Amino acid sequence: MSYNTFGREFRFTTWGESHGPALGATVDGTPPGVPVDEAFIQQFLDRRRPGTSKHTTQRREADQVRILSGVFEGKTTGTPIQLMIENTDQRSKDYGEIATSFRPGHADITYHLKYGIRDYRGGGRSSARETAARVAAGGVAQAVLAHLLPDLRITGYMVQMGALHLDRSRFDPRAIPDNPFFLPDAASVDEWSDYLDGIRKDQNSVGAAIEVLIEGCPPGLGAPVYAKLDTDLAAAMMSINAVKGVEIGEGMAAAALTGTANADEIRIGNDGPMFLSNHAGGILGGISTGQDIVVRFSVKPTSSITTPRQTINQHGAEIDLITKGRHDPCVGIRAVPVAEAMAACVILDHLLMDRAQTGGVRGEIG
Amino acid sequence: MSYNTFGREFRFTTWGESHGPALGATVDGTPPGVPVDEAFIQQFLDRRRPGTSKHTTQRREADQVRILSGVFEGKTTGTPIQLMIENTDQRSKDYGEIATSFRPGHADITYHLKYGIRDYRGGGRSSARETAARVAAGGVAQAVLAHLLPDLRITGYMVQMGALHLDRSRFDPRAIPDNPFFLPDAASVDEWSDYLDGIRKDQNSVGAAIEVLIEGCPPGLGAPVYAKLDTDLAAAMMSINAVKGVEIGEGMAAAALTGTANADEIRIGNDGPMFLSNHAGGILGGISTGQDIVVRFSVKPTSSITTPRQTINQHGAEIDLITKGRHDPCVGIRAVPVAEAMAACVILDHLLMDRAQTGGVRGEIG
Amino acid sequence: MSYNTFGREFRFTTWGESHGPALGATVDGTPPGVPVDEAFIQQFLDRRRPGTSKHTTQRREADQVRILSGVFEGKTTGTPIQLMIENTDQRSKDYGEIATSFRPGHADITYHLKYGIRDYRGGGRSSARETAARVAAGGVAQAVLAHLLPDLRITGYMVQMGALHLDRSRFDPRAIPDNPFFLPDAASVDEWSDYLDGIRKDQNSVGAAIEVLIEGCPPGLGAPVYAKLDTDLAAAMMSINAVKGVEIGEGMAAAALTGTANADEIRIGNDGPMFLSNHAGGILGGISTGQDIVVRFSVKPTSSITTPRQTINQHGAEIDLITKGRHDPCVGIRAVPVAEAMAACVILDHLLMDRAQTGGVRGEIG
Amino acid sequence: MSYNTFGREFRFTTWGESHGPALGATVDGTPPGVPVDEAFIQQFLDRRRPGTSKHTTQRREADQVRILSGVFEGKTTGTPIQLMIENTDQRSKDYGEIATSFRPGHADITYHLKYGIRDYRGGGRSSARETAARVAAGGVAQAVLAHLLPDLRITGYMVQMGALHLDRSRFDPRAIPDNPFFLPDAASVDEWSDYLDGIRKDQNSVGAAIEVLIEGCPPGLGAPVYAKLDTDLAAAMMSINAVKGVEIGEGMAAAALTGTANADEIRIGNDGPMFLSNHAGGILGGISTGQDIVVRFSVKPTSSITTPRQTINQHGAEIDLITKGRHDPCVGIRAVPVAEAMAACVILDHLLMDRAQTGGVRGEIG
Repeated sequence: MSYNTFGREFRFTTWGESHGPALGATVDGTPPGVPVDEAFIQQFLDRRRPGTSKHTTQRREADQVRILSGVFEGKTTGTPIQLMIENTDQRSKDYGEIATSFRPGHADITYHLKYGIRDYRGGGRSSARETAARVAAGGVAQAVLAHLLPDLRITGYMVQMGALHLDRSRFDPRAIPDNPFFLPDAASVDEWSDYLDGIRKDQNSVGAAIEVLIEGCPPGLGAPVYAKLDTDLAAAMMSINAVKGVEIGEGMAAAALTGTANADEIRIGNDGPMFLSNHAGGILGGISTGQDIVVRFSVKPTSSITTPRQTINQHGAEIDLITKGRHDPCVGIRAVPVAEAMAACVILDHLLMDRAQTGGVRGEIG
Repeated sequence: MSYNTFGREFRFTTWGESHGPALGATVDGTPPGVPVDEAFIQQFLDRRRPGTSKHTTQRREADQVRILSGVFEGKTTGTPIQLMIENTDQRSKDYGEIATSFRPGHADITYHLKYGIRDYRGGGRSSARETAARVAAGGVAQAVLAHLLPDLRITGYMVQMGALHLDRSRFDPRAIPDNPFFLPDAASVDEWSDYLDGIRKDQNSVGAAIEVLIEGCPPGLGAPVYAKLDTDLAAAMMSINAVKGVEIGEGMAAAALTGTANADEIRIGNDGPMFLSNHAGGILGGISTGQDIVVRFSVKPTSSITTPRQTINQHGAEIDLITKGRHDPCVGIRAVPVAEAMAACVILDHLLMDRAQTGGVRGEIG
Repeated sequence: MSYNTFGREFRFTTWGESHGPALGATVDGTPPGVPVDEAFIQQFLDRRRPGTSKHTTQRREADQVRILSGVFEGKTTGTPIQLMIENTDQRSKDYGEIATSFRPGHADITYHLKYGIRDYRGGGRSSARETAARVAAGGVAQAVLAHLLPDLRITGYMVQMGALHLDRSRFDPRAIPDNPFFLPDAASVDEWSDYLDGIRKDQNSVGAAIEVLIEGCPPGLGAPVYAKLDTDLAAAMMSINAVKGVEIGEGMAAAALTGTANADEIRIGNDGPMFLSNHAGGILGGISTGQDIVVRFSVKPTSSITTPRQTINQHGAEIDLITKGRHDPCVGIRAVPVAEAMAACVILDHLLMDRAQTGGVRGEIG
Repeated sequence: MSYNTFGREFRFTTWGESHGPALGATVDGTPPGVPVDEAFIQQFLDRRRPGTSKHTTQRREADQVRILSGVFEGKTTGTPIQLMIENTDQRSKDYGEIATSFRPGHADITYHLKYGIRDYRGGGRSSARETAARVAAGGVAQAVLAHLLPDLRITGYMVQMGALHLDRSRFDPRAIPDNPFFLPDAASVDEWSDYLDGIRKDQNSVGAAIEVLIEGCPPGLGAPVYAKLDTDLAAAMMSINAVKGVEIGEGMAAAALTGTANADEIRIGNDGPMFLSNHAGGILGGISTGQDIVVRFSVKPTSSITTPRQTINQHGAEIDLITKGRHDPCVGIRAVPVAEAMAACVILDHLLMDRAQTGGVRGEIG
């Protein structure tokens, strides 16, 4: 089964373990003739790379991507693109207790129960390190989107970290690249930084919420009823490590609304339908409306913490466990570029699906 | 593409429009030798059927399911099962304005933009009537689960309707079948009933939140990293009409938690690992832990309301639209059996996936 | 799994047993806005229908197709098309011995071994009656192809029946519709008819070879390396009941050729590349060249014959079995419209796949 | 789409071009806990490796496989297995004319027409070098089969090369590993060697036919009607470069048989059903019978020959082309281990599919 494959037309399969020799993504279905090279993909990986601020794991990985196939003379050929990232900082060490213990809140125990065997080094396949491969695949998607939908823009940012919430009245996307939190509010960066320092000093970790804004998406993408655009976005986000909730537009808050409040009324604008609000988050009936698409998701706190927790080990003994090592106090931070990558893959996938079924022809209004 | 197909091993494809002659589900991958008949499936359809209380659409459909293939002498044969439900109450009428107008918040406009043609009668393919087919497919899944996992129990119920919330201290699952809200709290039924009456009299509608509790699920189901159990549950719920958010365990609230609070500590119980809490909602790393699985989702308010809303029509004219007809003031109510059906299909799907890959053998502890 | 589904973009799932209430095909991925109605599809079913000559089974089925969804006001809507054919001539009878016996050369024994249960009535799911559903799905494909590729023409015909071979020097496609053998040689029809009469009187059956010629297929269809056009055509034909071999172009005879003889040399013609021969059968590297595509396959003799054969039954007893009933002495005859249907589905599938990946843009020459 | 992916449960995606830095296979769906290492896989690659006799291309590739993921401490973990083979002998050269010319009978022209761009170095993606990746994936399949079906044996051998045919009365499988033709007849090796020398000296090439014999396959594998075992075997073989025909059992010769001759009669043997003949090639109704499975296919002669052929180039000029370089005079030879690998993948895939649907339980006889 396609357990490790994401997408329908534009498909990628990720492979690799946290402390194996390499990891990567096998990308299939790419349109031919699209300009792309390692430098283009590398910029996305650099945004996700560990060790770039004190707020992320101090593991130092170059995360240098290599294109092994599918690109010739700087352009895609339409054949599979193999993206490989070598692991360079897998510290050789005695894994000792961790090899047979199950961190509470971690996949250790479920991988053991399911497979009877697991690469325990650094979390193996369940490590968030797998998301580097997604970001690389997302880089290919971004290259194709830049070619086919030049007006599209995908922007991820944090809207919550533990007790702190983004003040939306101060939303400024220009601030995002300039702080380690992908926070669209420059004035609050110090507060967020101090807060996370406190969490770390408490030998604790904290959850987060991330929003992805997709601007410039044309109407008509999404294939009801089981390949709806929002269904696929939800699956994309929920597949990211530690994600526990996904929302489109109003999200869970829609439960509290009335029909009159929720209706996104429509007028005629210069370029066709003009919506007066966007409770729907840009998707109706699983198909994009042409408005901004708004996706939000939560990330639970890192389960690897240095405060002791009660757990058991493989031998059936009850133990208290402290997880040493280099762990992000808020894994949600690095989920931002991952979510952008997943969003890019979903949008491209649906663009190609739509080309197949409708040829990209749109129904007319007026 | 499998646009209208759900599942990997246990797959169903739904077909049919709201006012066409029939709708149904083509179910493939069913294990052979499982007892099932029309009466068994019918009980699930009866729970979803419109017209059973004043709180749901007054469209009267028998929703009688017929098994056309794949069952012989009362047992599945392993070949495709065709489930057909004839539409009997598609009132012949002049669709007039609705044929060319776009209801705000409805898929009318996106179907038109994408396909250039749509069956506007009763919403056509975008109608929630499609969910009857899912419930029928879910009935087959329930039959197989009863055969293979007799201890499994899937229970859906409402936890929110507009301003009203379930008081969890009064949670009583025995109350669920006895009220039109699938509310696990008998004492609050009158309050919910009065509230929804008010909404309807105001020519309005209201959103809802539903929770699905899966008890008795064995550990080891879920296939990381893109066919995680929670990923598939999220996709399943998000594919239901009008759903805007999905949560597993703590859901969006996980963003506010710390690692120490969120850790589900583990001890040794009588039957293996015993978790002291369940913030994770029964899934770690995309694989079931053996705990209760908890899924929650929101449903936006019905977009078809009798209060006039500003919109446009296919000819490009700006109009005010009142949606007449028989619409549920809270579509979330009937989403409850639909969500149970989807959950049953996901669990069965993963059970079969796991049989394929691991043969159902589990890693040992102790 | 998609056990009963064929195709990638244009997908159909067939369902139904020989003597069940109905059978049909669930078709997904159809482009919207394509004119199609029941009469159009019916013409293909009529060519396959049993009981139309003394050379096919005397079972009399109207094989009347009904469109239950996906078509609105005479055009496809892009939603799933359900095609249903009711079984009307399932003679009620005592199946007696056949219910537990295994016909030599028939799927009776393997269905029993695999599933432990089978609908033995008329062969159940393994009956060639399933191909009626394929022909219906093929009718939809033909409608779409007529819309998108009006110059395409798919023609099937018999090239061998037991000891008789088509004399290719007398090949005349105009003769095909006018004889029960789909034989492109009017002068030989009597000889074929007498031969098959003799076979039937001998209580025997006979094999056949069928060729499908696809004219007007544009270059560029086919997706290497595991969705090659020839790979998919081979799978399509091999999936038809009783098929034992498939050939593209020179087929098995290619083993005897040298490279100089086999090279299809190329010159420049009026419309681009002009091939001087077609040993390749119109496909190179899995991609269509623009030449005629030539597919050939063999069909084994009907295994249900009235000459007694040694076999066993479900109880483990050794018996001699005579298969009574209404069976085609040469099932290959009715495989002709089935193969055309499968070819239409494959070509359409690849046309849509190509739209997705390349947008249908072709590399230029000159 | 899964253009470059083969299989359903046991899936591999090949990637890489003939003269790129590396090629490989991403394998997903492997059961956990299966012993496998690079040495085990390498033995299969060594059988396919070029340059091992004067009868195959003199390109010298170590074809050394590396396992980059999915294996831990010598056992599969159930996560994706990345198999990489670095290209070491891509001679740097001026490709000159070949970069823009189309070899007759080669995929050059169709790749150009479809994609508008192609990696012309050594045939790029269309090179038979891709089959090295299949053989590596097949090595993993062989390891799993050795674990789950220890009695299974898959043996490929040549049965025809141009004018020469295997004399089946002298069939001796022990001879196969000891000659460069995988010929099961030691006494004829010199004759085959002289014949192929003559072909090469004539600046020509020649076709071949290969048979794959699968012994010890249990009954019940195969999933009708579109995932039949023979359908998948046919697709597997037809996907191999230069294959033009595929046969199961009697193959194309079935067209000439009568029902009485073709019936494989059945008696009761020591271990259940005992078939008195095997015209069916071990498959009935798409499901294995438990008999030997017999698959045969033809390979056309190498299209790259040093005798000049008429063709055109990308600029639209008519030219005469001689293909220099290191090409096999009979590509069919190296197709033998490739076919074995594909057969292993198909059998394993169906074994896992069957575990999913039936749990491996078989219907009883007696």
